[in-house]
Amino acid sequence: MLRILHANQLSPAERTQLLNRQSMADYAATERVEAIVERVMREGVSAVRALTKEFDGVDLEELLVDPSEIAAAENKLAPELKAAFQQAAENIEDFHRMQRNLLKDSETTIDGARLGFRYTPVDGAGVYVPGGKASYPSSVLMGVIPARIAGVRDIMIITPPAKDGGVDPAVLYCAKLAGATHVLRAGGAQGVAAAACGVIGPRVNVIVGPGNRYVTAAKSLLAARGLVRIDMPAGPSEVIVIADDTANAEFVAADLLSQAEHGDDSPAIVLTTSVEFARAVDAAIVRGVKERTKRQALKQASIENHSFALVFERLDDAFDFANDFAAEHLEICTANPEQDLRKVKSAGSVFLGHYAPVALGDYYSGTNHVLPTGGAALAYSGLGVELFLKRITWQFPTRASLERALRPILLMSEHEGFDQEHGHSVAVRFKN
Amino acid sequence: MLRILHANQLSPAERTQLLNRQSMADYAATERVEAIVERVMREGVSAVRALTKEFDGVDLEELLVDPSEIAAAENKLAPELKAAFQQAAENIEDFHRMQRNLLKDSETTIDGARLGFRYTPVDGAGVYVPGGKASYPSSVLMGVIPARIAGVRDIMIITPPAKDGGVDPAVLYCAKLAGATHVLRAGGAQGVAAAACGVIGPRVNVIVGPGNRYVTAAKSLLAARGLVRIDMPAGPSEVIVIADDTANAEFVAADLLSQAEHGDDSPAIVLTTSVEFARAVDAAIVRGVKERTKRQALKQASIENHSFALVFERLDDAFDFANDFAAEHLEICTANPEQDLRKVKSAGSVFLGHYAPVALGDYYSGTNHVLPTGGAALAYSGLGVELFLKRITWQFPTRASLERALRPILLMSEHEGFDQEHGHSVAVRFKN
Repeated sequence: MLRILHANQLSPAERTQLLNRQSMADYAATERVEAIVERVMREGVSAVRALTKEFDGVDLEELLVDPSEIAAAENKLAPELKAAFQQAAENIEDFHRMQRNLLKDSETTIDGARLGFRYTPVDGAGVYVPGGKASYPSSVLMGVIPARIAGVRDIMIITPPAKDGGVDPAVLYCAKLAGATHVLRAGGAQGVAAAACGVIGPRVNVIVGPGNRYVTAAKSLLAARGLVRIDMPAGPSEVIVIADDTANAEFVAADLLSQAEHGDDSPAIVLTTSVEFARAVDAAIVRGVKERTKRQALKQASIENHSFALVFERLDDAFDFANDFAAEHLEICTANPEQDLRKVKSAGSVFLGHYAPVALGDYYSGTNHVLPTGGAALAYSGLGVELFLKRITWQFPTRASLERALRPILLMSEHEGFDQEHGHSVAVRFKN
Repeated sequence: MLRILHANQLSPAERTQLLNRQSMADYAATERVEAIVERVMREGVSAVRALTKEFDGVDLEELLVDPSEIAAAENKLAPELKAAFQQAAENIEDFHRMQRNLLKDSETTIDGARLGFRYTPVDGAGVYVPGGKASYPSSVLMGVIPARIAGVRDIMIITPPAKDGGVDPAVLYCAKLAGATHVLRAGGAQGVAAAACGVIGPRVNVIVGPGNRYVTAAKSLLAARGLVRIDMPAGPSEVIVIADDTANAEFVAADLLSQAEHGDDSPAIVLTTSVEFARAVDAAIVRGVKERTKRQALKQASIENHSFALVFERLDDAFDFANDFAAEHLEICTANPEQDLRKVKSAGSVFLGHYAPVALGDYYSGTNHVLPTGGAALAYSGLGVELFLKRITWQFPTRASLERALRPILLMSEHEGFDQEHGHSVAVRFKN
C-alpha cells in the first residue's frame, strides 16, 4: 500500500518529482474572491449577509455572536473536555510567552547617533476557524493566544455558521478561554473581507489560520493590497518521519496514518536506512486501515497517492532530502534525536524521539500547529507572537552626528538623482 | 501650494479621506504578471531572455553578471563615493547585527516535556533593485546586508539591464561590498520569477525590495503560491512630520520636499498646533520649488495633490492621526521627541528631533529604508534580519509527559473528528 523506493535508484528528475507537492496556484479561486472582496468593500454588511445566505444557507440579521451566547457555551461542554482545553491553553500560553519575552526593545549608538527599535502590537487580529461539517476549537487556541500575548486589543474569530446559524460551543468556549473579543459568524472570502475592512466590528490588521481555497485566496489578495498581514498560504498537512533502527514501526505507522486522516491529499513519508523497517511500517499501515475504518477512503488516498517510504544508505542523506522537502511536521525517531536536530535546516515543527507523535503538537504540548506546508517551510516559520507585533525603528541623531553624514549623503543621493532635495534636507540644517 | 486644514473642522468622512491612500489593488498588473510567471516556469531561461529583449530592449546571452565585471566596477567609481558607501554599509551592518544578536535560540520545559525553537537562515535571498533611468545602490546595501547577517548562502541582486546591457557600477560595487553572491541582469516580473524558480543561478526563497507595479504584483503572486516570502507590497513613499513650536519651518519644508522628490504621488504631511507654522512651511516650500528646479513637476504634483498641513488644538491628537495614518516615515520635531516616541503605535521608521531628516535613514545612519507604505505599517515592520530566518519549533517529550497528554488528546481529537488516528497515535505508545 505504501510505495517503497530506494534513494540510490532515483534519477534527479524522480527525486525532484518526490519533492514536488501539488501547486498552490489557484487562479480560479482568486478571480471569484476578487469579486466577493470588492462587493463587501462596496456594500458592507448587507453584502456579507447576502453571501452568508448564498454560501452557508443561513439568513442572519446579526453576524456577531452575542456575548451571552459565548458565556452560555461553557455549560454545554463536558467538564473533562473543558479541562483538556484549559491545560492545552496553559501550555500554549507558556510556550508563546517565552517567545514574547525574548523580543525586547533595544538601542545602540552608531557614529554618534542613537538608534533602536521598539515592538508595538497591531490593533486588531482575525483568527479564521473552519466550520461546516467539522469544528476546530484547537485552532482557536493556536491563533488567539499568541495574539493576546502580543497585546492585541481586538481579537476576532472568523468562522462560518452552521446550518442552524449557530457556532460550535467548543469554539465559543475556547474563544473566551483564549481571550478573543469578538466572534464573527461569517466565513469564506466574505468573512475574511469583512474583518479586514472593519465592516462588522473592529477592523483587523492581521489574519491567521487555515481555511479552504477561497479563504486562502482572500487572505493572499488582501495581503497583496497591503490591507492585512497574513501567516502563510495554507495547503494540505504533511509529515516526514526519519527513522533509524531504534524506531518502532507501529508508532511510525500510526503517526503516518494520523497525517493521512486529515484528507485525501496529505503526504505521509518515512525516510529510513532499512528496507525491512519500511516493509514493517507498510504492514502496520495496511493493518491499521483495515482495523480503524473511519475516514478510510481519505486515508487510503493519502497513503497511496501522496505518500512513500524512501530507503537511504546513510541517515545524513535522509536529512538532506528532508531539508529539500521542508515538511510541515518532521519527526526524528532516531537514537540521538537532539543531536540530529542540528541537521535540520527547513521544517515547520520538529518532533524528537519515540514519544513525540505530531498529534501532541497539534493539540497539547504548547508549540503552535499553524505551520508552513507545501514546501513553504523553505522560507516561512510557524505562527508566533511576532506576527502580531510591529518592530518600529527609530533614530535620534545629534547635530554633530548629522553633520558627519552630510557629505556622504550628498554624494550618494546625487548618484541616485535625489541630490536636490534629499541632499538639501541635510545641508539646510548647516546653512550659515 | 500646501493645503492647510484644521482638524476640528473636519467631518469624520473628511478625516477618513485624508487617511486614505490610493488603493494598491492592481488587477491588471496581476493578470499580465501571471502570464509572465507561468511562461518563465514553463520555458525557463529562454523565456527570461525573450522577455528582457521585449521589455528592456536588450538581447543578452548571459544573464548573470560575470564576477570579473563586478570586480572591475570598483575602478569606475570616485574614491569619495566609495568611502560614503563603505561608511553607510558599516552603519547598516552594526544596526542589523544588533537585531540578529537578539534573536536567540531558546527552550523551556512545559508539563515535563522540553520544547524550544531555533533560527536557521533561508538558503537563498533575492534583492530587487530598480533600474531603468535611475539606479539605487543604497537599496543594494539595505537588502543584502541583513540577508548576509542572517547567514543566507546565496544572495542575488535582481535588476533590469540598461539599454547597453550593463549594470550601474555603483550597484555592482555595493553588491560586492554588502556580500551579494550573484547579480541577475533581468528585472520586472521575469527577473522575479527567474529568481524564485531557480531558472538562472540559485533559487531564492525570499524576495525583498521595491519595484514597479509588475515587480510588486509578481512578488505577491509568488508569495500567494508559497514559493517565496516577501517583505511587503510597495507603494509611494510618504512622510508625516509632527511639529511643535520648537520646530524649524525651513527644516520641515526641506524634509517634505525631499519626500516629494520621489515622484508625483508621495504624500508629505505636517501635523502642527500652529497655523502660523503651517503657513511658514508652505512659504518655504513655495520658495524651495522655485529655487531648486530639478524634478519640479513631480514635486509640485506630490505637494499639491497628495500633501497637506493639518492644524490640531492638542499635540496628542496629532499623534492619534499619525497612528491612524501609519506613515512609512514619521518625524517628531518637538521639544521632547523621545518622550513622544512612546505615543507612536504605527509607523515604519521614526526620526526624532530637529537633526533627523528622513534622508539620513534613507542612506546612512544604519536603520533600514525598506519600509511599509500606504498604511501597511498598521501591520508590517520594515525590513530586518528576521525575514531571512526561519524559527523552527521543536519538542522532546518523555514517555511520562506524553502519557499525561493521552486522555486530553483523545477528548480533543474526538471532538474534531480526528480521534481514530490522532488519538491512536498517542495511545499506541502505551498499549500493553
